[in-house]
Amino acid sequence: MSFDTDTLVFDNAGLIPAIAQDCESGEVLMMAWMNAEAVGRTLETGRVTYWSRSRSSFWVKGESSGHVQELVDFRVDCDRDCLLLQVRQTGPACHTNRRSCFFTALRAGEEVELMAPMG
Amino acid sequence: MSFDTDTLVFDNAGLIPAIAQDCESGEVLMMAWMNAEAVGRTLETGRVTYWSRSRSSFWVKGESSGHVQELVDFRVDCDRDCLLLQVRQTGPACHTNRRSCFFTALRAGEEVELMAPMG
Repeated sequence: MSFDTDTLVFDNAGLIPAIAQDCESGEVLMMAWMNAEAVGRTLETGRVTYWSRSRSSFWVKGESSGHVQELVDFRVDCDRDCLLLQVRQTGPACHTNRRSCFFTALRAGEEVELMAPMG
Repeated sequence: MSFDTDTLVFDNAGLIPAIAQDCESGEVLMMAWMNAEAVGRTLETGRVTYWSRSRSSFWVKGESSGHVQELVDFRVDCDRDCLLLQVRQTGPACHTNRRSCFFTALRAGEEVELMAPMG
């Protein structure tokens, strides 16, 4: 079946959550949002492009930082309301310069940092 | 620092997205939503508990199907508006009986199924 962006289920703001996963390590890097056009641009260019809710603009990941995400595999969940992007990530995915945004874990009720900013 | 559920950033509906990842294989299993009390119940019981938006009720994953998620590690992202749960998943995570909800991939513009329902 040919893929049609219109078959995705967007929320009231016209957005769908997209999880980025490192295609080699399986590490979950980040979660951000796409609108229909961001999905289209990502598929066309192979360069992962989100919709920035805070800036109300397209956000070509790594465009200013160089920490780009090359799309390797594009997956849709059973309800068609969430995307999983397997990516080749250059450098850190997180704006704090850490590889993943999920660097804080809860251990025995305390928050611990699992990774340091990349050098 | 002690963890406080109040420091999480919930959306206008009082919900936060939670990604469940297989703690052993790294496979992303599903994404669902939690409210503050679902987060608290998950941490207290070690049994992953979501908020069902369609049923407006707590959803102890696997309570009826037996396909439970045992919480292994609880992580928060840099913006504190998304959770990553590393879980020990019994059986399929997806209601279609597949291991993961992300069983549909896009290859050369066509949708392909990556996995069959579990026996």
